[in-house]
Amino acid sequence: MTPASFVGVDWGTSSFRLWALTDHGHILAASRGPYGMAQLKKDDYASVLNNSLDDLGVDASVPVIICGMAGAAQGWHEAPYCSAPAHLHQLGVDAVRVPGVNRDVRILPGVKQQHPANVMRGEETQIAGLLHSHPDFLGTVCMPGTHTKWVTIQNQSIVDFETCMTGEQFALLSSQSVLSHSMSSTEWDDNAFLDGVRETLAQPDAVARRLFSIRAETLVGTQTAAQARARLSGLLIGQELAATRPYWRDQCVTLIGEPDLCALYAIAFASCDARSHTMTGESMTIAGLVSAYTVNKDTTGD
Amino acid sequence: MTPASFVGVDWGTSSFRLWALTDHGHILAASRGPYGMAQLKKDDYASVLNNSLDDLGVDASVPVIICGMAGAAQGWHEAPYCSAPAHLHQLGVDAVRVPGVNRDVRILPGVKQQHPANVMRGEETQIAGLLHSHPDFLGTVCMPGTHTKWVTIQNQSIVDFETCMTGEQFALLSSQSVLSHSMSSTEWDDNAFLDGVRETLAQPDAVARRLFSIRAETLVGTQTAAQARARLSGLLIGQELAATRPYWRDQCVTLIGEPDLCALYAIAFASCDARSHTMTGESMTIAGLVSAYTVNKDTTGD
Repeated sequence: MTPASFVGVDWGTSSFRLWALTDHGHILAASRGPYGMAQLKKDDYASVLNNSLDDLGVDASVPVIICGMAGAAQGWHEAPYCSAPAHLHQLGVDAVRVPGVNRDVRILPGVKQQHPANVMRGEETQIAGLLHSHPDFLGTVCMPGTHTKWVTIQNQSIVDFETCMTGEQFALLSSQSVLSHSMSSTEWDDNAFLDGVRETLAQPDAVARRLFSIRAETLVGTQTAAQARARLSGLLIGQELAATRPYWRDQCVTLIGEPDLCALYAIAFASCDARSHTMTGESMTIAGLVSAYTVNKDTTGD
Repeated sequence: MTPASFVGVDWGTSSFRLWALTDHGHILAASRGPYGMAQLKKDDYASVLNNSLDDLGVDASVPVIICGMAGAAQGWHEAPYCSAPAHLHQLGVDAVRVPGVNRDVRILPGVKQQHPANVMRGEETQIAGLLHSHPDFLGTVCMPGTHTKWVTIQNQSIVDFETCMTGEQFALLSSQSVLSHSMSSTEWDDNAFLDGVRETLAQPDAVARRLFSIRAETLVGTQTAAQARARLSGLLIGQELAATRPYWRDQCVTLIGEPDLCALYAIAFASCDARSHTMTGESMTIAGLVSAYTVNKDTTGD
């Protein structure tokens, strides 16, 4: 097999994804596992990484670039945030070398914004990936997930950004609140989703009293479990769109994330005559790791 | 001791509260425990009740009136909902006798609303208690709790009502979401609470992006754990007030509930120049059980 030029890792709160890559981002080998910051102590990171690389037969001389929560204060080794407005070139420049490891391991910084306060770790690398192939990109990137990011990009920089906890709210309300008794974990109804989006966009201040109606419609109405689950998702995504209107109105939004989740946002955008197109999160992460690796190598001269 | 005329029980989702009462609602003995619908199977209810009455030495001839989730389909024995608009007199009339018990045990119905769909079980009895002492009451009752009820009362009837899941959302977000890392379980800051209320009332559609800012302000700002917790509560109660404006604007709202929680709502009302006064939830429950017992006795002639 062609020897890997470097190894890229996306090390998040709940998962670990690793790719052995050529200089141009061609994947030579990959592995993943449920070894995220939430599961690991500081001392665990080195062995998770080394075991994974040994399994793939990656030589100890191959450098490693990591993005995500491994660089948080409570992660493996802190990589201090860059401040927005932040040029994406800075990620590779500010990568922090992890001490005391038998390899060259560097962690990319996240990005922070002071006013209004906000932070990201991992998404900035996907944006670097987008700019790697579209250096002239100008506009809004929406990155759906547990904590959805809305990012304004201009001059290869993150100008400002917002975060909505829509994914986490959906997970908590659908599985742990009284609403969980009205829904199943898999069924779905597109019309109920769109009704929820439209209702919230038309009357965003009513969300607080719409949520319980999902339970009540099951008890006194004819709502199905599929309708209940999709309606909850629609109300919450509608609430997010109401809060982020300046980011998407009169724009073509670029969605980066898991295809299924991006498809939901795309349907929601279409329902309010907004446009979007989707790029896969994993491919953007890999492109961003390649970009940061290249900058880091050129900068440090290692 | 004066023999009890009847026993009143408030049997909810997570707790059981029982009072041996005179005709006029004087408490002769009381007990309580964590035996709610969430903890019990149908077959458990009779023994929980009997053990509690035996402990207090209440004779088997004393009738029992129950309100709350014990009357839900998934509770002890279903007491079908009255439909709103619902005269509070109807609770005692429609009480359902539980079969197969060695006592006279009756469960009060809840109230349902068809459009928009809504349900209550337990709160209607507190409203009957309010009308017991204030038969001419006209206006809005707000009942803060896990699921806060907003109720319009006119002609001794529940005209319409809304439910906000504010208490449950606060519990989930403060203890299980990413925001939990920014707050402690007890500290509190009044100013941060009021700032949250005011911000949401001024811009209710921005709530979705304000929530994560609680976490971000801890990471990049100087926000304390007390401020974080109070701010979350303020944002959520502000969101509730934005959704229920027609219920409280230009009204003096009557709050019924736990005094500490009602005090928070009272502060929030005062901050937007609305008026409120508070009545204790337990005393309203007892008065409502007395009222329903009296109606039921007169109606059935038992």
